[in-house]
Amino acid sequence: MRIAVVAPSCTLKREAADAVQAMAAERGDCELQIHPQSFLSDGHFAGPDEARLAALREVMADPDVDAIWFARGGYGSNRIAEAAVADLPESARAKSYMGYSDAGFLLAGMHKAGLDVAWGPMPQDILRRGGEDAIGRALDWLVDRDASALEPQLQPPAMAFNLTILSNVLGTALEPDFTGVDLLVEDLSEQLYRLDRTMFHVSASPNVRRVARLRLGRVHDILANDPEFGAGEEAIIEDWCRRSGIVYGGRADIGHDTWNRIVPFTSENR
Amino acid sequence: MRIAVVAPSCTLKREAADAVQAMAAERGDCELQIHPQSFLSDGHFAGPDEARLAALREVMADPDVDAIWFARGGYGSNRIAEAAVADLPESARAKSYMGYSDAGFLLAGMHKAGLDVAWGPMPQDILRRGGEDAIGRALDWLVDRDASALEPQLQPPAMAFNLTILSNVLGTALEPDFTGVDLLVEDLSEQLYRLDRTMFHVSASPNVRRVARLRLGRVHDILANDPEFGAGEEAIIEDWCRRSGIVYGGRADIGHDTWNRIVPFTSENR
Repeated sequence: MRIAVVAPSCTLKREAADAVQAMAAERGDCELQIHPQSFLSDGHFAGPDEARLAALREVMADPDVDAIWFARGGYGSNRIAEAAVADLPESARAKSYMGYSDAGFLLAGMHKAGLDVAWGPMPQDILRRGGEDAIGRALDWLVDRDASALEPQLQPPAMAFNLTILSNVLGTALEPDFTGVDLLVEDLSEQLYRLDRTMFHVSASPNVRRVARLRLGRVHDILANDPEFGAGEEAIIEDWCRRSGIVYGGRADIGHDTWNRIVPFTSENR
Repeated sequence: MRIAVVAPSCTLKREAADAVQAMAAERGDCELQIHPQSFLSDGHFAGPDEARLAALREVMADPDVDAIWFARGGYGSNRIAEAAVADLPESARAKSYMGYSDAGFLLAGMHKAGLDVAWGPMPQDILRRGGEDAIGRALDWLVDRDASALEPQLQPPAMAFNLTILSNVLGTALEPDFTGVDLLVEDLSEQLYRLDRTMFHVSASPNVRRVARLRLGRVHDILANDPEFGAGEEAIIEDWCRRSGIVYGGRADIGHDTWNRIVPFTSENR
């Protein structure tokens, strides 16, 4: 099993790459091919748009690569996502793709283009406390399709997004069809008023209103709201679901943390 | 000229209300009717949704009110904006409306509903240093339609929005038609990566792509971007305009400050 790592958003830390390489070597069931582009730096990004796109397209076209693992989030994959899925080589369809957070732009566009994508931990997560668990879970899924790595309540077809990323996907060329989907969302580092505003935007979408249900993962590092918002994260999500006729399905086991579980974006017609 | 003040978002400060009342009395050409709802407080908001909506609908229906002035921004007008413009009483059409920032949700929905709205300073602005200038400009426009209060480069039809608010308007029931519009945007308290992400989202809209041109007001209190983003605010806006085929028309004289000028949302068919 050959897994290519590229960084469509921000720069991967060397120590994360080394630690994940060591874990893969220890397992002995996969080979990690960390693309040098992952360590580039150009302002906010892991190299200029052209370099990030070229590295991604290169591994997508490589028939010897079985899976593509996005190195980390941050910001920037939206700047190359539409070009990444244009004129797909056949070899791009014979592999799987994993990431979360900002990589949601790619998950959306690639799923829409018919590729086999999954929400799940990324290499840089190994730097979190307990990160080996997250990386082990990601590899268990990528290598073995180990069902114990999955979010436990999934009712396929399913998708997962950072809520703020999802809001920015809507109306763009990357927006997938949400009809009948078990839609899992999570967020971090936002004020509750922003969570409320983003849910206003997301739940207004006729496409999102066609989900089977919406479930809420963890919301981490909520920033101070002055004055106190007056409602908690789950009440906010439930309120907008109620207003928009979306079924709220309860909590989901995903988030920007090492407990984050895998959500394959399965489609009805696969 | 009777001007009603209501607070569809956050609570108006008493000292702001008193100072603006004093300015209006000094002028002698208008009467400010500050609705008691403006001082309510319920968590983040100036009272519950029901109270904010009821106050707004009450003054909209009042034939003795010539203009409605939104007390301040913050967050929350989106929660009542769609209901505010449903089944409009005829008297709502015979008056003008002014505000900016979060009130952009109302400006959007009200303009779409055919009401006479304008981007401009709000009563709470009097608490900014030099706030009397902003309030004077707002009243000069509301009372006298003084053209010297206008953004100087307007090519009607024009609209103005906080960019983050505009992003959250897209795809909702409030989204107006941007065809041929001189679209002015400004923002504040965002990291540059968020400005870039928001421009990705906004410039992807086929509706926004129909503007005559897009112009950039001031971007205040930019939050630290780690690492440095690598491009400035104007370069970001120009980049996404270029990518999306939108004409970038240069800077605009609007922003979250006391220099903020008036932008009437004129429509072709008015």
